[in-house]
Amino acid sequence: MKLLLEISYLGTGYHGYQVQKNAVTVEGRLQSALEKFYKCPLMLVGCSRTDAGVHAESFFLTVEGDLYENMSPKKLPFAITQFLPEDISVNRAWRVEDGFHARYDVMYKEYKYLIWNEPIMSPFFCKRAWHCPLRLDIELMNECAASFVGAHDFSAFMAQGGSAKNTVRDIKYLEVEREGSLVTIKVASNGFLYNMVRIIAGTLVDVGMKRIPLGDIENIIASRDRKRAGPTLPPDGLYLSRVVYKNDKFFKN
Amino acid sequence: MKLLLEISYLGTGYHGYQVQKNAVTVEGRLQSALEKFYKCPLMLVGCSRTDAGVHAESFFLTVEGDLYENMSPKKLPFAITQFLPEDISVNRAWRVEDGFHARYDVMYKEYKYLIWNEPIMSPFFCKRAWHCPLRLDIELMNECAASFVGAHDFSAFMAQGGSAKNTVRDIKYLEVEREGSLVTIKVASNGFLYNMVRIIAGTLVDVGMKRIPLGDIENIIASRDRKRAGPTLPPDGLYLSRVVYKNDKFFKN
Repeated sequence: MKLLLEISYLGTGYHGYQVQKNAVTVEGRLQSALEKFYKCPLMLVGCSRTDAGVHAESFFLTVEGDLYENMSPKKLPFAITQFLPEDISVNRAWRVEDGFHARYDVMYKEYKYLIWNEPIMSPFFCKRAWHCPLRLDIELMNECAASFVGAHDFSAFMAQGGSAKNTVRDIKYLEVEREGSLVTIKVASNGFLYNMVRIIAGTLVDVGMKRIPLGDIENIIASRDRKRAGPTLPPDGLYLSRVVYKNDKFFKN
Repeated sequence: MKLLLEISYLGTGYHGYQVQKNAVTVEGRLQSALEKFYKCPLMLVGCSRTDAGVHAESFFLTVEGDLYENMSPKKLPFAITQFLPEDISVNRAWRVEDGFHARYDVMYKEYKYLIWNEPIMSPFFCKRAWHCPLRLDIELMNECAASFVGAHDFSAFMAQGGSAKNTVRDIKYLEVEREGSLVTIKVASNGFLYNMVRIIAGTLVDVGMKRIPLGDIENIIASRDRKRAGPTLPPDGLYLSRVVYKNDKFFKN
C-alpha cells in the first residue's frame, strides 16, 4: 500500500529535507516516527529536496511498506503527532495508486520568499524571513518579475553545484507583494534549478533597491551568466508553499 | 537624561521580562547590552512585568544614567542591535521628561492571545500560539466578551499569588477575531491582575467550546470566585501588543 502525506515543517533545526549521514534531517525524523508507529521498515519518497534552514508550508511525500490496511488515512495525522517533534506536522494523508510518484508527478511547485523590510529586524521573523533594511520598490520588482515568466534558460540563476543538464524551466507566475512590513515573493514553476528561487529573489531585491536597472533583466536572463544575476539570498526566508500534481486520479480518498 | 525605548521580544527563551537571580530575563539582556554601549551603570524601569514565555510586540521602558547627551535617540535602535540577541529588538527611542514613569504613566495596555484553531498544530506557531483542536464559536465568544467590558471586580480572574488589594479593573475593549486558522483575543485595560488575560482567554475558550453557558458569565464575574472561571491558558499565546501613555507631553521628540 502507498500513502501520500502532506506535511509542514520549520526548517531552522534541520540540515534540509533529505536523509544524510550524521545530520538531523526532516526525512530522517519523519522516517523514524513513521517506523515507530507502523513497526516496520518504510520507503519514503519526497516531492523535492529543500536545503538546510528552508521551511515548508506544504510538502508531499509517499510512504510505502507494510501499512495498516484497515486504518483510515484520515487518522494518521493524529496518530503520528506524538512521535514527531513540534517543528514537523503531518497535516493530511491519502491512499494513492502504486504508480504515483511524489516527485515525477508534480505539475508545478510554488515557493515563497519572505523579506522583513524595515530598518530594524523583528524578533518574530528571525530565521523565518530575510532582513532588508532599505525600503524596496515593489512596483519596480513586479515589473522586473514579468520578464521571468514563461519558458527560459535559467542558467544565470543556478548556483554552482547544480547538476541539471536541461536548464530550461517554465515559470508560471512570479509576483511580489507587500503586507505591512513583510514583502513576499511568490514563484511557481514546473521545476527549479539549484538555488534558483534564492537567486531570483536576490535579483528582484537588487532591482527593488535600484542596484540593477530594470532594463538589464532580459539581458541578464539571456546571458546565462550566473555572475550577472543578483546574490543568493539566505535559506531562512524560503518556504515551499504549494505542490500541484498532474492528475487527481491518483488520490483515492 | 532619561530615554524611553520601545522594544519587541520573543519570550520563549526568557524567564519573563524582569531581572531575576540565576535566570535569563529580557531586562537582564537589555541592561547588559545598554551598559556595554553606554559604558556606565544604568537604571531601567519597564512598563510591565511579563511572565516566562510571554512575548511582546510593543513593550516600553525608560533608561536613566550617564547617556550620550548629543547622540540623537533615533540612532539608538541601530547602535544597540549588535549587542542584543536576535530575539530582542529596540524599535524606537525618545527623550522624555525626568518626571515620566514607564509604569505609572500608562493609561492602558493591550494584550493579544493567539490560538491555533485547527485539528493539527502548525509548526510555525509552536510556542507562539496555544493549540485548540476543537472549532471555536467566535460569535458566542464575542457575545461573552461584551460582559467583561467596563469596570468590574475581576477577582474571579486573578491567579493565586496576585498581590493586588484593589481588584477592580476597567476593561476598555475585549474582542475575538478569526483570520484563517488563527483566533486572536484582544483585550485592553487600565491594568491587569495576575494572569488575568490568560484566565479570561481560558474562560472565553470554554464558552466557545460550549463548556460554559453564555448565560453564566455575568454570575461568574459577580461571584469573585476563581474556581468558577475557565482555566489559565499557557503563556506561549500571550503578547503585550500596545501601551498607551496618559500624556504625550512627556515625549520630547
